[in-house]
Amino acid sequence: MTGPLNGITVLDFTRVLAGPYASMVMGDLGAEIIKVEQPRVGDIARGNGPFIGNVSSYFLSLNRGKKSITLDISKPQGTELALKMAQKCDILLENFVPGTMKRFGLPYEIVSARNPQLIYASISGFGQTGPYSQRPALDVIIQAMGGIMSITGEEGGPPIRPGASLGDITAGLFTCVAVLSALQEREKSGRGQYIDISMLDCQAALLENAFARYFATGEVPKALGTRHPVFTPFQAYQASNGFIAIALVGTQWPLFCSAIERLDLIDDPRFIDGWQRTLHYDEINPIISDAIKAKTTQEWLILLGGLEIPCAPVNRIDQVASDPHVNERNMFVEVPCPGAGKAKIVNSPLKFSRTRAKVVRGSPELGEHTVYVLKTLLKLSDGEIESLIQQKVI
Amino acid sequence: MTGPLNGITVLDFTRVLAGPYASMVMGDLGAEIIKVEQPRVGDIARGNGPFIGNVSSYFLSLNRGKKSITLDISKPQGTELALKMAQKCDILLENFVPGTMKRFGLPYEIVSARNPQLIYASISGFGQTGPYSQRPALDVIIQAMGGIMSITGEEGGPPIRPGASLGDITAGLFTCVAVLSALQEREKSGRGQYIDISMLDCQAALLENAFARYFATGEVPKALGTRHPVFTPFQAYQASNGFIAIALVGTQWPLFCSAIERLDLIDDPRFIDGWQRTLHYDEINPIISDAIKAKTTQEWLILLGGLEIPCAPVNRIDQVASDPHVNERNMFVEVPCPGAGKAKIVNSPLKFSRTRAKVVRGSPELGEHTVYVLKTLLKLSDGEIESLIQQKVI
Repeated sequence: MTGPLNGITVLDFTRVLAGPYASMVMGDLGAEIIKVEQPRVGDIARGNGPFIGNVSSYFLSLNRGKKSITLDISKPQGTELALKMAQKCDILLENFVPGTMKRFGLPYEIVSARNPQLIYASISGFGQTGPYSQRPALDVIIQAMGGIMSITGEEGGPPIRPGASLGDITAGLFTCVAVLSALQEREKSGRGQYIDISMLDCQAALLENAFARYFATGEVPKALGTRHPVFTPFQAYQASNGFIAIALVGTQWPLFCSAIERLDLIDDPRFIDGWQRTLHYDEINPIISDAIKAKTTQEWLILLGGLEIPCAPVNRIDQVASDPHVNERNMFVEVPCPGAGKAKIVNSPLKFSRTRAKVVRGSPELGEHTVYVLKTLLKLSDGEIESLIQQKVI
Repeated sequence: MTGPLNGITVLDFTRVLAGPYASMVMGDLGAEIIKVEQPRVGDIARGNGPFIGNVSSYFLSLNRGKKSITLDISKPQGTELALKMAQKCDILLENFVPGTMKRFGLPYEIVSARNPQLIYASISGFGQTGPYSQRPALDVIIQAMGGIMSITGEEGGPPIRPGASLGDITAGLFTCVAVLSALQEREKSGRGQYIDISMLDCQAALLENAFARYFATGEVPKALGTRHPVFTPFQAYQASNGFIAIALVGTQWPLFCSAIERLDLIDDPRFIDGWQRTLHYDEINPIISDAIKAKTTQEWLILLGGLEIPCAPVNRIDQVASDPHVNERNMFVEVPCPGAGKAKIVNSPLKFSRTRAKVVRGSPELGEHTVYVLKTLLKLSDGEIESLIQQKVI
């Protein structure tokens, strides 16, 4: 079985995270990813620790299965080779600061004139237009500006950055959605197009509910610890030996009251539904918090789970990694890792009945596939390749 | 201009968040979304506050532009109508607990026999297989089990839930990617397929870097406040009147030292690069924290911004909503809202050169399009529709 994007080729100029995450997802789905890197330098993420042997685990996770070619697109010959490759590809991805591809002679207008079917997606911190478009952006900058840090943290505490690079990864996923939509449209129109993805725009899309609440009420959403803004209980509580998340949204309040041995609360009008409990949070929360402290996480999981009340341990990363369900879902894979045998990374989460997504190779060495790609895609001769090496174009 | 998914029809049985987020994204891209709801009950998210007039802002934001039909699929006639509609659609989405669609007579085997081209995607908390597959799941349960809460929060503090429903939304975005990949594959094979999306699987994919670090080193990733695990400074600092995020990844340390008037630190071997500064975090962080407190956020933005050091205010939601750049990027739109004039919500973040994504309508009333869809899609007569109403099938 091959993946659903088998036969699709991506010319990938992206570095670090947002773009490489997008091409990782597409590569796992069977697309051929040709990662174009600066000769001798490469994607700076190759230098991000920790290392497995001499391979960056950061780079490996994001670039498994891709082909790497070196090409100096600041040289005219490099630009021309990039244009020739773009003629053979379906998708071009780049995540430079806006204007950079133009300086390299590779703006959409030029590339699409060579290949009108090409889908050309640019990812940047702030997008190709607007007053901030030229600003440099990194994940924490985007998470700060987009608002999520202001609604993450303890009530009344300082802002907290969620523990994943949501500025980059959300943009990477939206880029996949946009590119695949344009591929679908191309089947009808026969034409490619340009896509402008802004990491900050994607943060707004991620926070649709916070903005909807703000626009509806004028109240500024705040950080709520692990709480939900609408439902109670819907958060993590400290058990005697760890934390447990409990979430009630339906009609399970009487069952929950019996579990915490507080039948007297069942008909209390202050706590009669999720919204009332949220309105009376300061009264109900100490009661629930005290009750949960009395047993271990495992005891609560058995007790509440038996009542079909949604609950879960607050897992550490090592606990997720060894979880039997997550492993039965095949969410971790081992890939070859030069110098260190094998390395374990996260698998694609996409499961298809006919066209399986899969991770088979590790990350490429810098320029590992330069000669292969130039020979197969562009039919260059050994002499031509030797000349490019001597001129430091590749 | 119409969106890139114009002409694609989605039969959408999903409720609340993960599924509706996926169909929202596809609907903004031009797909026709036929939202199937239980007669008289509807998507329970219709009851989630706060309200604009009598419209749920929660529901409005996620269901703008969709068509709503009521259909009781627990009745044989409802099942048959659902099957007939599935014959006319490209995509079917559902996010019931695994096994529910089978009980309704609508499992993939039955539906695909009627329409082998259909792409049928199931979203659930834990996926269709594995020991937890029958457990109920809600966002905080998935965020707890997936590990992100354990790496979000203050160092040494309790777990924190990121301020967005990442369990649902990440799954919704991955569902879009999977469905659109299968659409692309269908162009070649002529065949649909089944897609099994687990919210928990998608959390692992979101945390690829945390798992890569853990597998590489055996060290369990921890919560780091607003810090980055690899780079320093790369976090939010308290200025005299608010917070500012500062992120150094390149060679800007000397510039930053000059900005904080500590030229003596430039050549200090403890702080010579991002990794060394992370290793000596306890020494460098108090120095930087004290320096940043001396000026306002605005003063630092001008000073550091002038040096092209990535920095940003930690914005509240109201500040993002009024930000001139975000507004110039057209990230908020007004849609008609019955009983309340207009309501403002977040726009699609996807910007195409030829096929514009757009939000034009608000959310549908329950069953607003039942008659329209049954007449246009299934060519039912007035008499047949009247009979279905009397039998409470619609």
